[in-house]
Amino acid sequence: MKYQSKVSEAVIKRLPRYYRYLGDLVKMGISRVSSKDLSARMGITSSQVRQDFFCFGGFGLQGYGYDVEYLHSEIGKILGLENTFNMAIIGVGHIGQALANFPTFEKKGFKLVGLFDVNPALVGQKIRDIEIQNFDSITEFAKHTPIDIAIICVPGMYAREVANTVIDIGVKGIWNFAPIEFHGPDDVIVENIHLSDSLMVLGYKINEFEKL
Amino acid sequence: MKYQSKVSEAVIKRLPRYYRYLGDLVKMGISRVSSKDLSARMGITSSQVRQDFFCFGGFGLQGYGYDVEYLHSEIGKILGLENTFNMAIIGVGHIGQALANFPTFEKKGFKLVGLFDVNPALVGQKIRDIEIQNFDSITEFAKHTPIDIAIICVPGMYAREVANTVIDIGVKGIWNFAPIEFHGPDDVIVENIHLSDSLMVLGYKINEFEKL
Repeated sequence: MKYQSKVSEAVIKRLPRYYRYLGDLVKMGISRVSSKDLSARMGITSSQVRQDFFCFGGFGLQGYGYDVEYLHSEIGKILGLENTFNMAIIGVGHIGQALANFPTFEKKGFKLVGLFDVNPALVGQKIRDIEIQNFDSITEFAKHTPIDIAIICVPGMYAREVANTVIDIGVKGIWNFAPIEFHGPDDVIVENIHLSDSLMVLGYKINEFEKL
Repeated sequence: MKYQSKVSEAVIKRLPRYYRYLGDLVKMGISRVSSKDLSARMGITSSQVRQDFFCFGGFGLQGYGYDVEYLHSEIGKILGLENTFNMAIIGVGHIGQALANFPTFEKKGFKLVGLFDVNPALVGQKIRDIEIQNFDSITEFAKHTPIDIAIICVPGMYAREVANTVIDIGVKGIWNFAPIEFHGPDDVIVENIHLSDSLMVLGYKINEFEKL
């Protein structure tokens, strides 16, 4: 079965932003927020905010604004943040190490359980008490510790091979940092982070702006 | 004057992907590619490929396919990769260090010229021959070495202050890795990388898929 979201990609991508902003409001002790304030902060229209929330049932009367804590918690539930995902990082170079050191992922239910590399200089080292293992051992590892999400941080030329291996061991999702276009099989969700692409987009816009 | 692209955001975001894929084809010695093959690789329709290219003048007869080397070079020009941008990283923690160690950015004209942090344990250390300087000195630094792009990798609570400082010294673009919603002034282009957001989107889709 192929994954096909009932909700548009644009709406899904806004959910973490709502969640982050509402979390800030909770910390500031603000209890109610209007769709107008929310939308101004997010750089979208207030009718877009109402439409987005309508996809998930509405979340209360707009005339009185939204209850911040309730909305924050409901969006957290929609994002599935009460669930826990086991994650493994494959390729513990600079980016892999940076991700391994992100403690905030764990607060959101994303738990790092394994680090894998093929570099003998890295295998055996530890990051945050997790030992880097040889990538060859990932299939054995996954038999006792299921991996839900594989974070692929290897060079582009190895990325497909790594992806095939982690798909074989049954990961549900791949967070891909390798510079390749990657489409998984139908039952594996893929999110790509292409850092160079984002930088090139920034460069493009700066150039275009200077020509105006 | 506010930056308003003549080309849609979706098309701009596909340019680096075309560029990357065509670069792979160049390396493989493939000289012609059809819009059908390009589109299959990109996961879009071939009519979308033709429409995208039409925004920039078309790039040759589609019946015979596109000349790979020419198309690669033209898209590189559109992306402005023949230009050079000076970049500075502010916040040399795990992510900042990982970015500082990305040699491929330089091949695309993005040159790292400065590293800045407020942590005395980091100031004075070097990464790839660039010494980490105190953030206080960035305004002085920018007087002799212009900074085109500021890469903000500081914790969310400091991000706005850092952004205001780099805007004051005249950066053209901000590549923001801090977990805040950030809209710069009209004449500064901002590209955000929100790693946690991407991971939450992945988690959302896995959850949604499991409920199907």
